[in-house]
Amino acid sequence: MSAKNNREPKQRILEAAISLFAQKGFASVGVREIAKESDVNIAMISYYYKGKVGILKAVLEEFFERYCQMLRDAVEEGKSSEESIRVLINHIVDFLRGNTELAIVAYNELPIDLPELAALKAEKITQMIGIMSGLIRRFGLDHEDTRLLGMIGPSLISMVFMNFRIKPILRNVFKVEFNDAYYNEFSETIATLFLNGVNGVVAMKQKQSRKKP
Amino acid sequence: MSAKNNREPKQRILEAAISLFAQKGFASVGVREIAKESDVNIAMISYYYKGKVGILKAVLEEFFERYCQMLRDAVEEGKSSEESIRVLINHIVDFLRGNTELAIVAYNELPIDLPELAALKAEKITQMIGIMSGLIRRFGLDHEDTRLLGMIGPSLISMVFMNFRIKPILRNVFKVEFNDAYYNEFSETIATLFLNGVNGVVAMKQKQSRKKP
Repeated sequence: MSAKNNREPKQRILEAAISLFAQKGFASVGVREIAKESDVNIAMISYYYKGKVGILKAVLEEFFERYCQMLRDAVEEGKSSEESIRVLINHIVDFLRGNTELAIVAYNELPIDLPELAALKAEKITQMIGIMSGLIRRFGLDHEDTRLLGMIGPSLISMVFMNFRIKPILRNVFKVEFNDAYYNEFSETIATLFLNGVNGVVAMKQKQSRKKP
Repeated sequence: MSAKNNREPKQRILEAAISLFAQKGFASVGVREIAKESDVNIAMISYYYKGKVGILKAVLEEFFERYCQMLRDAVEEGKSSEESIRVLINHIVDFLRGNTELAIVAYNELPIDLPELAALKAEKITQMIGIMSGLIRRFGLDHEDTRLLGMIGPSLISMVFMNFRIKPILRNVFKVEFNDAYYNEFSETIATLFLNGVNGVVAMKQKQSRKKP
């Protein structure tokens, strides 16, 4: 029996599906392929996940749960807003290094409109935004300004994810070696960029609101 | 004859394919579907594009050409580095508003490893990086530090694109109305975030290099 077969079928299906979705995209992977790759009967996929969309739902649930936990950990430890952002980015980078395929699948499928996932996405994203908003507001942004939070929050996430999406390009064109030293510098750079950036936006908004009558 | 049929078959194929790729992802769209949607015989797709990958190649070529032109326009007009970044972000936002599907297809397919597109991607990305590097270096970053450019350059692109990728979320959760006022504020906010962010990174790097023996 291979190491693969020692794990529970439910987990094997999930892992095989994440790998296939990450490589080929959700839409172009069939349940047959997932069954073959995870060495289970195709009926097992229906039994555990009710099909392909059910697996994607499990992927998104795991992703959001871990992501929200990182957000809560960063916010709730009584740190300054600067420390919170630095801790958060370190945790996201560590998470992405250890779970690149899971994260890439969740990130890529986020904009895809599947009615079965709409409720889950709306709930989790609202939850994420709640925590993220609390953090960003501590920089002095207007509490009511959700429009601005919708510009700034996703920009932080996208900066970190982008690096993992274009790894082959960074490796080939920028000759990057993806080791601990690189990721330490990356986390520090993105945190510094974001922190100085948000402070700049806050200053701009305060200046603009002083100008208003 | 419908308005659709007034255009040349080659252009009709491209437009139908962009729409289908943007909605369903490149991998899950078939040539038959593109032929049907563009109202041409399937043989025409082979004739003009040598198949589905050829269409994606045309999409990437158009995207990169227009993108590099925006970069050159922003850099070459003798503006300050701050003005250049603001002009660049305004142009990218306008471009994305007018060509959302084209841009989303190019952005989504960028990490996908198709051997037929590797040479094109490497060439265009190197070209983009050349122009972008010139711009970012004017902020005072080390000329040799390509690693850092590979962190900062893509972060700018990702911040702008993210907003277009998650439009349904922004519309539903943040109640955003995508009008001129919104996009003016968005361009200004991202430019301010990026400019202050890069200046912060430069200051951090200078501080660190002074500490070295």
